[in-house]
Amino acid sequence: MNIQGKPYRSIWEKGDGSPVVQIIDQRWLPHEFVVEDVATLEAMARAIREMHLRGAPLIGVAAAYGLVLGLREGLEAGEAARRLLKTRPTAVNLKYAVEEVLRAVESSEGGAAAVEAALQTARRLAEESVAQCRAIGEHGLPLLEAVAEKKGGEPVHILTHCNAGWLACIDYGTATAPIYLAHRRGIPLHVWVDETRPRNQGARLTCFELAEEGVPHTLITDNTGGHLMQHGRVDLVLVGSDRTTRTGDVANKIGTYLKALAAHDNGVPFYVALPSSSIDFSLKDGLREIPIEQRSPEEVKTIQGLGKQGLETVLLAPENSPAANFAFDVTPARLVTALITERGLCAASEDSILALFPEKRGETTLREGRRSL
Amino acid sequence: MNIQGKPYRSIWEKGDGSPVVQIIDQRWLPHEFVVEDVATLEAMARAIREMHLRGAPLIGVAAAYGLVLGLREGLEAGEAARRLLKTRPTAVNLKYAVEEVLRAVESSEGGAAAVEAALQTARRLAEESVAQCRAIGEHGLPLLEAVAEKKGGEPVHILTHCNAGWLACIDYGTATAPIYLAHRRGIPLHVWVDETRPRNQGARLTCFELAEEGVPHTLITDNTGGHLMQHGRVDLVLVGSDRTTRTGDVANKIGTYLKALAAHDNGVPFYVALPSSSIDFSLKDGLREIPIEQRSPEEVKTIQGLGKQGLETVLLAPENSPAANFAFDVTPARLVTALITERGLCAASEDSILALFPEKRGETTLREGRRSL
Repeated sequence: MNIQGKPYRSIWEKGDGSPVVQIIDQRWLPHEFVVEDVATLEAMARAIREMHLRGAPLIGVAAAYGLVLGLREGLEAGEAARRLLKTRPTAVNLKYAVEEVLRAVESSEGGAAAVEAALQTARRLAEESVAQCRAIGEHGLPLLEAVAEKKGGEPVHILTHCNAGWLACIDYGTATAPIYLAHRRGIPLHVWVDETRPRNQGARLTCFELAEEGVPHTLITDNTGGHLMQHGRVDLVLVGSDRTTRTGDVANKIGTYLKALAAHDNGVPFYVALPSSSIDFSLKDGLREIPIEQRSPEEVKTIQGLGKQGLETVLLAPENSPAANFAFDVTPARLVTALITERGLCAASEDSILALFPEKRGETTLREGRRSL
Repeated sequence: MNIQGKPYRSIWEKGDGSPVVQIIDQRWLPHEFVVEDVATLEAMARAIREMHLRGAPLIGVAAAYGLVLGLREGLEAGEAARRLLKTRPTAVNLKYAVEEVLRAVESSEGGAAAVEAALQTARRLAEESVAQCRAIGEHGLPLLEAVAEKKGGEPVHILTHCNAGWLACIDYGTATAPIYLAHRRGIPLHVWVDETRPRNQGARLTCFELAEEGVPHTLITDNTGGHLMQHGRVDLVLVGSDRTTRTGDVANKIGTYLKALAAHDNGVPFYVALPSSSIDFSLKDGLREIPIEQRSPEEVKTIQGLGKQGLETVLLAPENSPAANFAFDVTPARLVTALITERGLCAASEDSILALFPEKRGETTLREGRRSL
């Protein structure tokens, strides 16, 4: 998608003959646009752990490239994989991508061939993500078109939480893909953007993306969605997912569950856009089985923004008050109207999900077997 | 309540022979403790409008003192009342307090007697608020005791939103009154404090109050309560109210409705602590009838905190992204377990509320008649 009119992806190979991978260091957006050179596995692990980049699909591809860098450094593949796997516990794409690269490495003849196999896999995962997001956009588009038609030219009001945009993926985004496609096709729409504390990915990243693409939007606090829905000012909610169970329970940025409750209470459709790589077919009960990452209390007690002297971090609470920082929550399948996947829409239920992905029926045991990884 | 071990109220007469009223300028808490001298009606109107002070009960008493200051300046009582009434639209205590003072002024012999009557009314309203909050505490206390008993010494986990503490009142607070009384009686408890964007009254004020009183607490983002309730980590929710209808619909700080939904979904009791002065007996339908104040988008796009150079305001979003700032939402009565008033508990229903306040049965027509005010 575009930044200042120039098309970008969120991760790319530097292409100067070096193995360097480049990413947008998202910590400084929207105030500064910083491109980071990532040259080692450790640098990629840090970029994932410290959230220079984030978003389930992007984390997966970044980890795949991290593995390539690790192999180039001469690290053993299993060891490299372990280091990457422990960077973020909730997103399942990380595990999926690392497993894909490991499989390619294991099937290769080792040495330079292993590095090449890993690189080809990382590239394939990136291209697959782009294609998947594009497909999610195409499948979600009719939902927006239907509302637009019913409203006869009035803008379609969409509420989104966090950033499930192209900055969370490689291109297009998941939740934003239908929005971008609809906008480019001239469907009038307006996006309510939850600021999404504690890391403010909505205020910082989703607003940035939408502004750069010229999509009308309004920033709101995370507290506001319920009020808007009570007053008929939201036509649909559209969010992403960091991990979804085979039964349709959706782990996503903390606070998603509260918006789903409000949507349910007000008869507003609640859609989750996700590539199938973020479905964890080994899990049945999201609330019990999906590990929820706890991050530093400092992310709650302080915030970064643009001050008079440039980017500054300010303290928001009494210095000695403790804080807790749960990064995700789980929205039970019963609150989800439908999942929008790269293969089309399905209900948030095991039957419906497996009907769309029949090849995953046996996945539970398969993954059980690989869990020792 | 205590600040640095010294007992304070949120508003008091300077007592140096001047008409000056002093308030804690809450905009700088918890980082700076500033006492402001308020000497004119206009200064008090500004203090209310620009939120040097806030909270429904405190706004009422502050407006009463504002009217006293206005009369001392020689302003006509009706004109002074009008100026104060337009400072904040949602809190009904403002209207209640101003009407009480006007009534006293009308019954007086005018001149110095009018000023004296107004002053006595302001003092009475302040004392009534303290007594009401104390009574709310006494009536709410058994709820906490019951949970404590059931948990056999484990802390009672209470979630609160915004600041319905003594800084929102004159002393004790509304939602915090049962907490302070329970804490002083040695009941083990722990408070989850929603930071409460956009103005962060939870992070800034509730954490400050609880820390100064030594009550264990943990700051969380507004997104977090649902997750905690899903995992059994909240025993009850306890919030205040800016205006409650005679039918039990509760207007409170934006986001309260989302917590009520989560409480309902997880079988967690949801209590609203409020003095009867914040019940608007003229209203039956909170969603349609309670005006919801919209404040400056800058409160969403920027935030104030303590930086390296002292208090600073930083920008959180792209400069050109629009923002909307709804200050309150309405929690439908069906989601409220009970109201805790100065006369005891009641269900959030017209019958139950009027059973506790039978003298208000005829209020609808009375207020209709005074609406020209």
